[in-house]
Amino acid sequence: MVGGGQLARMTAAAATRLGVSLSVLDPDPDCPASSSALVIVADPLDLDALVEFGRSVDVVTFDHEGVPVELVETLGTRGVAVAPGPAACRLAFDKAVARTALAGLGLPVPPFEIVPDAAGIEAFGRLNGWPVVAKAARGGYDGRGVMFVEPGGEDDAVSQLGPTIVVEQRVDFDQELAVMVARRASGDIVTYPPVSTVQRDGMCAEVTCPAAVPTHVAQSAERLARQLAEAAGLVGVMAIELFVVGDSLLVNEMAVRPHNTAHHTIEACVTSQFEQHVRAILDLPLGSTALRTPAAAMHNVVGSTDDHDPTNQLAEALEVAGAHVHLYGKRPRPGRKLGHVTALADSVDEARAIARAAAHQLNQPNATTGERR
Amino acid sequence: MVGGGQLARMTAAAATRLGVSLSVLDPDPDCPASSSALVIVADPLDLDALVEFGRSVDVVTFDHEGVPVELVETLGTRGVAVAPGPAACRLAFDKAVARTALAGLGLPVPPFEIVPDAAGIEAFGRLNGWPVVAKAARGGYDGRGVMFVEPGGEDDAVSQLGPTIVVEQRVDFDQELAVMVARRASGDIVTYPPVSTVQRDGMCAEVTCPAAVPTHVAQSAERLARQLAEAAGLVGVMAIELFVVGDSLLVNEMAVRPHNTAHHTIEACVTSQFEQHVRAILDLPLGSTALRTPAAAMHNVVGSTDDHDPTNQLAEALEVAGAHVHLYGKRPRPGRKLGHVTALADSVDEARAIARAAAHQLNQPNATTGERR
Repeated sequence: MVGGGQLARMTAAAATRLGVSLSVLDPDPDCPASSSALVIVADPLDLDALVEFGRSVDVVTFDHEGVPVELVETLGTRGVAVAPGPAACRLAFDKAVARTALAGLGLPVPPFEIVPDAAGIEAFGRLNGWPVVAKAARGGYDGRGVMFVEPGGEDDAVSQLGPTIVVEQRVDFDQELAVMVARRASGDIVTYPPVSTVQRDGMCAEVTCPAAVPTHVAQSAERLARQLAEAAGLVGVMAIELFVVGDSLLVNEMAVRPHNTAHHTIEACVTSQFEQHVRAILDLPLGSTALRTPAAAMHNVVGSTDDHDPTNQLAEALEVAGAHVHLYGKRPRPGRKLGHVTALADSVDEARAIARAAAHQLNQPNATTGERR
Repeated sequence: MVGGGQLARMTAAAATRLGVSLSVLDPDPDCPASSSALVIVADPLDLDALVEFGRSVDVVTFDHEGVPVELVETLGTRGVAVAPGPAACRLAFDKAVARTALAGLGLPVPPFEIVPDAAGIEAFGRLNGWPVVAKAARGGYDGRGVMFVEPGGEDDAVSQLGPTIVVEQRVDFDQELAVMVARRASGDIVTYPPVSTVQRDGMCAEVTCPAAVPTHVAQSAERLARQLAEAAGLVGVMAIELFVVGDSLLVNEMAVRPHNTAHHTIEACVTSQFEQHVRAILDLPLGSTALRTPAAAMHNVVGSTDDHDPTNQLAEALEVAGAHVHLYGKRPRPGRKLGHVTALADSVDEARAIARAAAHQLNQPNATTGERR
């Protein structure tokens, strides 16, 4: 796996359980996955290092979108097996490619344009209304690389996001969904039950399952995911984030890798997204995605402004009955994802309350214990 | 953790999830835990190495009983925190001490005697009937260090088991149970729902849960475990294996560490035995031991005579819907535990069938696919 973050760390746990060895390529020897996988210390932009890494393993996969698609394609030509494969990577690693491809497939996306400069943003805004959403085609994550732009802010946006910008109409959505799909090379596809997501500062803050939408909306989210996985020739897992407007869906973002919106699958589903990814990229039989609980919730643990370490509140968090605590072994930094808490319960409200209570303990340097249960 | 076998490997996974680093001390740099933990390569009988290791960590625990109790006690006097603590280690690492202590607590054990020689075995057999069960006081596991002795076999037993032998009456039991208990230093105790176990060649072959005994028998197993944990000042988890004779229980064996009879807790219980052990030895709040499924079964994957590697049958095993496959990354050897399969279902019969079907695939070099489901 190129990238040794928390996704690699949790993928490594799933791989190890199956007797599969995961190696990661990361510039940081102490990356989160270093506790659970062999780390090859190298720059993910170094083609020679990538090729050498790729030749030492059965298949290369990614825990982030930081590798330029051109490098991924070159890897393929150098005899390295890559999953999800260059076509799906191109979709996932480049928002301009993704938007164009989605529209080409007839999948619902917000009105958009791909523009190279401030004039393009300005023209789009004049036509579609302000503010507009401007996204860097490449390299963004967790809200980085995405801006709301008002008239007069175009130059600033270009300097921060350029050179290729996807500019979109801001969608006045009712809620956000995410759906995860897995496909193996031989073609089998499975989808996970869609989840409701809450974003904060452009970052996934909370996930609840089942999603708070009528069955037919959930079903059309799964259909859409399946269609996209097939079209992209996906190998591995892919997360699709959707806007819900009335009974309609619009594709917001996608990621061709394990994703924050499916961390709850570790405890909540028969097969976790991480095990599913390992199965899919090795062309092993896919596992059941069925829920093992009536309801689940996941709440992120994010670095606060004072850099306190959530590990210091582990005891308080574990006092919360039913909280499944995950900490990633990362140095605390404001706004950095440091862990998450999953809870299972008979209702979404109950699961959410448990996950929040434990995450609250971990998020607060001087958390009171009043919210324990 | 002293010892880097599969128990350390699975403990490391649980620790990592909580953001806790597990280091293991093992003579083999490629031990099963090496994929998931930092390995300090050293002989577990080397006191200096143990002390140095112990001083580098918060607390030392064990994945086997291979360290002489005297060494464990010395560690304590050298300022190393040891869990479960010398008293519980003494109970668990020495069967002569254990039998005497259990009898002293008034807990039900088979008639036994501690003998140093063939004459002792012979005298016990004459009094209690043949064959007798002879056990090495120290160092046995998975059936090693245990013999059924018939008249005339005493010398052989002594040469294989000596110098201190526990000789017991063979119990004509109806079935075997196991119960797991956890205790943290501050005193909280939790017990897991007892399981039925099937032994083959002295080794745990299959576990099913709930145990096939009336509720009052299960409750008395949990009471007994709680009593023993308190008496021993246990810190960590302890497995107690019991014979069921009618409605009565007799203590057969105990292990003060995570145990094969509780591997199913990874998927079947809210808190796995491995996470519970980590919580207990760090004096963190203990987790719920509740079952998350009506029924569970665990079937071991054991090396066959032809040294085939179960990894080669991973795809076939994963075809079995609902099978949770665990492989330990060990070199295949006849009789060696190489992995296990857990299945959850609405009934024990159904769970057992799934676990067996997948384990069968992994155990057979040329498994047919007829048993898939």
